[in-house]
Amino acid sequence: MSDTRFGNHWIEALTKGQTRFHQLPADLDHNEAALIRREALQHISGASLRSIGDYTREPQPAHCENRIGSIQIPLGVAGPLLVKGQAITAQEPVYVPMATSEGALVASTSRGCRALHAAGGAVVRVEEVGITRAPVFRSSGIEQTQIFLSWVREHFAQIRQLCEQDSQHLQLQDIVPAVVGTSIYLRFRFHTADAMGMNMATIACDRVIRQLISPETGVPCISISGNYCTDKKPAMVNFLNGRGYRIHAEVRLSQDILRDILKTDAKALCELQYRKNLLGSVMAGTFGGNAHHANLLAAFFIATGQDVAQVAESATGITCIEACDHDAVYASIMMPDVPLGTVGGGTGLCTQREALALMGIVPGSKKPGVDTRRLAEILGALVLAGELSIMAAQASHQLVSAHQRLGR
Amino acid sequence: MSDTRFGNHWIEALTKGQTRFHQLPADLDHNEAALIRREALQHISGASLRSIGDYTREPQPAHCENRIGSIQIPLGVAGPLLVKGQAITAQEPVYVPMATSEGALVASTSRGCRALHAAGGAVVRVEEVGITRAPVFRSSGIEQTQIFLSWVREHFAQIRQLCEQDSQHLQLQDIVPAVVGTSIYLRFRFHTADAMGMNMATIACDRVIRQLISPETGVPCISISGNYCTDKKPAMVNFLNGRGYRIHAEVRLSQDILRDILKTDAKALCELQYRKNLLGSVMAGTFGGNAHHANLLAAFFIATGQDVAQVAESATGITCIEACDHDAVYASIMMPDVPLGTVGGGTGLCTQREALALMGIVPGSKKPGVDTRRLAEILGALVLAGELSIMAAQASHQLVSAHQRLGR
Amino acid sequence: MSDTRFGNHWIEALTKGQTRFHQLPADLDHNEAALIRREALQHISGASLRSIGDYTREPQPAHCENRIGSIQIPLGVAGPLLVKGQAITAQEPVYVPMATSEGALVASTSRGCRALHAAGGAVVRVEEVGITRAPVFRSSGIEQTQIFLSWVREHFAQIRQLCEQDSQHLQLQDIVPAVVGTSIYLRFRFHTADAMGMNMATIACDRVIRQLISPETGVPCISISGNYCTDKKPAMVNFLNGRGYRIHAEVRLSQDILRDILKTDAKALCELQYRKNLLGSVMAGTFGGNAHHANLLAAFFIATGQDVAQVAESATGITCIEACDHDAVYASIMMPDVPLGTVGGGTGLCTQREALALMGIVPGSKKPGVDTRRLAEILGALVLAGELSIMAAQASHQLVSAHQRLGR
Amino acid sequence: MSDTRFGNHWIEALTKGQTRFHQLPADLDHNEAALIRREALQHISGASLRSIGDYTREPQPAHCENRIGSIQIPLGVAGPLLVKGQAITAQEPVYVPMATSEGALVASTSRGCRALHAAGGAVVRVEEVGITRAPVFRSSGIEQTQIFLSWVREHFAQIRQLCEQDSQHLQLQDIVPAVVGTSIYLRFRFHTADAMGMNMATIACDRVIRQLISPETGVPCISISGNYCTDKKPAMVNFLNGRGYRIHAEVRLSQDILRDILKTDAKALCELQYRKNLLGSVMAGTFGGNAHHANLLAAFFIATGQDVAQVAESATGITCIEACDHDAVYASIMMPDVPLGTVGGGTGLCTQREALALMGIVPGSKKPGVDTRRLAEILGALVLAGELSIMAAQASHQLVSAHQRLGR
Repeated sequence: MSDTRFGNHWIEALTKGQTRFHQLPADLDHNEAALIRREALQHISGASLRSIGDYTREPQPAHCENRIGSIQIPLGVAGPLLVKGQAITAQEPVYVPMATSEGALVASTSRGCRALHAAGGAVVRVEEVGITRAPVFRSSGIEQTQIFLSWVREHFAQIRQLCEQDSQHLQLQDIVPAVVGTSIYLRFRFHTADAMGMNMATIACDRVIRQLISPETGVPCISISGNYCTDKKPAMVNFLNGRGYRIHAEVRLSQDILRDILKTDAKALCELQYRKNLLGSVMAGTFGGNAHHANLLAAFFIATGQDVAQVAESATGITCIEACDHDAVYASIMMPDVPLGTVGGGTGLCTQREALALMGIVPGSKKPGVDTRRLAEILGALVLAGELSIMAAQASHQLVSAHQRLGR
Repeated sequence: MSDTRFGNHWIEALTKGQTRFHQLPADLDHNEAALIRREALQHISGASLRSIGDYTREPQPAHCENRIGSIQIPLGVAGPLLVKGQAITAQEPVYVPMATSEGALVASTSRGCRALHAAGGAVVRVEEVGITRAPVFRSSGIEQTQIFLSWVREHFAQIRQLCEQDSQHLQLQDIVPAVVGTSIYLRFRFHTADAMGMNMATIACDRVIRQLISPETGVPCISISGNYCTDKKPAMVNFLNGRGYRIHAEVRLSQDILRDILKTDAKALCELQYRKNLLGSVMAGTFGGNAHHANLLAAFFIATGQDVAQVAESATGITCIEACDHDAVYASIMMPDVPLGTVGGGTGLCTQREALALMGIVPGSKKPGVDTRRLAEILGALVLAGELSIMAAQASHQLVSAHQRLGR
Repeated sequence: MSDTRFGNHWIEALTKGQTRFHQLPADLDHNEAALIRREALQHISGASLRSIGDYTREPQPAHCENRIGSIQIPLGVAGPLLVKGQAITAQEPVYVPMATSEGALVASTSRGCRALHAAGGAVVRVEEVGITRAPVFRSSGIEQTQIFLSWVREHFAQIRQLCEQDSQHLQLQDIVPAVVGTSIYLRFRFHTADAMGMNMATIACDRVIRQLISPETGVPCISISGNYCTDKKPAMVNFLNGRGYRIHAEVRLSQDILRDILKTDAKALCELQYRKNLLGSVMAGTFGGNAHHANLLAAFFIATGQDVAQVAESATGITCIEACDHDAVYASIMMPDVPLGTVGGGTGLCTQREALALMGIVPGSKKPGVDTRRLAEILGALVLAGELSIMAAQASHQLVSAHQRLGR
Repeated sequence: MSDTRFGNHWIEALTKGQTRFHQLPADLDHNEAALIRREALQHISGASLRSIGDYTREPQPAHCENRIGSIQIPLGVAGPLLVKGQAITAQEPVYVPMATSEGALVASTSRGCRALHAAGGAVVRVEEVGITRAPVFRSSGIEQTQIFLSWVREHFAQIRQLCEQDSQHLQLQDIVPAVVGTSIYLRFRFHTADAMGMNMATIACDRVIRQLISPETGVPCISISGNYCTDKKPAMVNFLNGRGYRIHAEVRLSQDILRDILKTDAKALCELQYRKNLLGSVMAGTFGGNAHHANLLAAFFIATGQDVAQVAESATGITCIEACDHDAVYASIMMPDVPLGTVGGGTGLCTQREALALMGIVPGSKKPGVDTRRLAEILGALVLAGELSIMAAQASHQLVSAHQRLGR
């Protein structure tokens, strides 16, 4: 039962249309505040919020204002997945948490994991491209723009120093400019160790603009983000130049594995790859070309506390399937734009932290950056597993029966 | 404590690398099965899965194989939101559930809701474009393709009848072909009442292909999905022709509202719109142009049990902000591709069902389709609120301070 | 020697910076006017314009203001080309004029023609999608937009009648709307018989907007072109929905033809197709995927008096090459957006008219539309020939040697 | 009258279907050969080729096989154009040759030139990005790819030396790799002085691959072009990273100039810019956003002997028009991908050389690179002039009347 002083007050305020309902006393316990909000909303809407309130209490408030509880997403595991990477090897089979309510997704991905397992694991390599932020500036025209860009080039060391001064984990890699008319975009690219880093990158850009770039050049910054970053939108600037992690994973599957585990063969898989992932994607006007990278990304992002909105930019990868000798296939995935972190944001929440721990990822247990590389490598192999299985299902016309059997 | 017979057996199987670990007895209770899996994984990995196991028991198993529990995502509410739509009116202020761990997102969106509230609400109109599925066929060349397409045109009524025969909620709208070389894509478009409908559309296509189209034409179907659908990938075929719901929302904000609630003015907002959402998006090679539709979509999709992977296709909308007389602005959002449902998939899970009920959406309480239109209208207004607030924050250079104050 | 009264006057005017130098007396012969301009420009610049003045005199002035003469583009012929179409058959081998200064292009295309010839010709089918024009209107918002669009739907017959009233060759096919914020685009699509039709479409749209749509709806038209047409820009709206002619051409080439004429084999061609036209195009972020459609289009457009600027929209097609039994290949091209005409514009100029006549195209000699379909069919086969030859050259690493031998 | 020995022989060969009709004796004069071909084709087709044969005789054969003559394109001049660049200044008003048969284009562009003239000229800056060529290699997978890329990085100096050894005008700038599956694309970027450079770049790449890269790494090159170059296709890799020249041009136009010369005002122009070039282009799924860059590019490319097929990649630029104080506007164009040359290819043909000379461009008269920079600067100002005039015409609804008055 909540402290009804607040509850009544709040309900009254809401009823009167005093709309700033989240302003409860600052010293109120966050679980207590959530309870008050739930009760008020139940009173107003008549809806029960019992399950939403049935969440695991955490020591720290989550980064979610006006919290009333939690949404629960079913969590399954796919695996064991064998990853031949650099931060994880085939000696460590891993069970990968996937949060989803799409029937057949976990089972299908597990089948893909079995195929990889039978082949000795997926080879994975990841590149930390880094997180990017691109403020937009307004110049008076071409001539001021040229002076401005020269100034930025010449003061790169100073800019970097100011960006990095408050964090030992932030490293400015480069600044790539883009210019159109009176608008100048500076795409800052940072390495951010184990954090996804969007927030620390934004803070660093803001500081260096306010303290250095704008005062020294006289060129005003219109916004800390000019959409050339590009965060949470599919964008060719990310596809071509990368963002977050660029991930490659590959495997060779023998005729036996194709037949016994994936219930298909090289010919059917390759024809599907050609007509669907390649030609079909081109005909549809897609970026990249894949079957369902987004499914794997979304389930993995939710499970591990990533920023789920970044699925919007991450689902532009390419799946390749190529015929090899002896009726085997080579299969690979390439994802150019996957922001990932193992500290910060949702990664610190109870269930997400456990999901990370299940894969051997425990903040502070390794050298900076290793945990997130490990996460990226696992994700690469997982997406490859997921692609192989759905492509096989479609090639052998089992997609519908799988969904019907496993419900949806 | 689980029934250790299974637990031990399972652990042993896993240890030996017998990888099909989800095969527990079919009659086992699903919560019991999840417990067994958790214990086995805890044993193997050494990680605690206590919070993951701390989920609300549901009568039905969720559509998630190998389930070990749930991930919890903090749930906040934004609002009250005034929506001037057709399935919801301004007489029903609504509190909108948002599941996120991004600090500042709910608070920022609530500020946008206040702005809309002060303006009397957002005008919203939605169009049910319908869900699409595009199988790919292989023809022998141009001549067979022409015969095939003629056949499909001439037998449309029969195709429709067969598609619709097993569901009173499925209605075939049209079939749009695309041809390249020997590949033929038929983009089926369905109305699916309150369901998002991807699954029932797939089943209907599968049936009509197997029973009618391929036998009658002799043209084989290579896959039930040829990527011209396009599901879970950003694609121009969806952007131009729509998919799921096409949503328009708009509002006019006076100088007072801009100043008092959004802490900005028309001039700053319009300049930002120009340099960021328009030019910046074009420079980045994005589809559409918006600030952070994906954030709103992801938080709303998770809260209401939608298919989160569809954020990949839904985040391609356009935000407009235009100067009006008296230093006011007109602002709008257009989202051409938003698959949505209020029955099926994750919408039936406990917490998600409550989140829907909070907005007055209770399956079976209204005429078919009305609940999902209502959901679409609320989403439209929510995205508009979210765009207004973040644009205002960036225009007045408060983005960084908001994130720092509200954590992230 | 020109009439020096004008020449001197003109030179004087230019020297004084009186910049409207094209205003010569209206009754002056157009060749005389060109001479005057040449002499003045020679005087000012010191450059000789002798060759530019060495052009074939025409009875009618060309549609080119301030004319000083002509540019000459070398014209070669490729062929004989066998086209198995509907407006031209394999009984009529055709020699195709190509205007280019790129060494090796005509020779290479001729080699492709030989391959098609050996295979019995290319099967070609064209679809007259029609020319499009999309004016943009400004509405006051969603509600007025909906009323406006309803009005347009309900008055389609009246709109069509008014569009078509001044021309027996113009037929309005449909009007497809697109809406964002307060902007409404109406994409009018017309059949225009043998004309490319952009001009008559524009005039018809202008009339119907001024006389009917805007007065009746009160919704102002901001511009006769809102870029949703899309004319002379590569655009997905054209790629997906087509514009001008959509052209398909295909052929099967035996192992012998591949070896003897194209100096390659199925395996090398198919691998190149995969890595270049498919994956390479996706990696580059191209529309469609082809090797050099633009080369064929440009040479053919210049030779036949088309609007060369439309190469910008026409070069987005797709080339397919697929392995067949017995080491043969199936090859095809699809071009969704090729505006073409055989009357109007540059098609009436002396040399262009002869180039058209060389292919049996003589204005007025056939039923309306047949000549332009014939042109489209020839172009389709030509592009296929050009693609086959360059792909073969690249597959067998002869591209460089061909360019070196034939100069450039 | 031709040497009938060849003519008769040729006609006979053609009639018999002996298709290699371009094989005339190697020592035959090229004009004589063209005459023979014309006569044969006239005989076969019944068409007159008199005007095609009425071309200016050149000392050297043009780079066009099977030549039968020339196509003549009407040439007008726009100007005087004032360019405030670095290779040309406002002290040198220039008359710009435009080859077109589109009525109104030259007149309209001239009006734009007058507007620029009244404003003191256009400020233009160009950047020589350089020409690019991207061969595609096949690796055995991720590990070989990584070794290969390391090798390329480590041997960059040697690669550069071998690329540059045969030409003093070729300079390798950098090599940017892109990887997907087993395909590796290396995008070589070269400075090529006054030449457009595609051919010399291709030759250099071919040499370095055959002599150095493939032998040393064991990684085979599948094709000298993997479409990641990207030549003659619109592509985001070019849009974002540039190709050929990246050109910026800008001007400020007062209210008086807008009213008196362009017959419009700032408000109408800016609204059109918003609804057409920005929103309309986004809605259509275009790269960039402009009104008719392709028109200017095509007319200028034809007039000056450029490779007209490259219009396909060059027409993706952006036009900006922004309101300024006192009802003035700022207008600019940005073109990221304009390959240009003043030596080689079609630039050496009689009429084209004269057209270049008219603008003060005479091969060998300046330091290497200056002529082509001059050409690029003139083109930038010309495109700006053309955009301003058509935008003004559309904003004031004069587009139709201009086309009707000036014919088309």
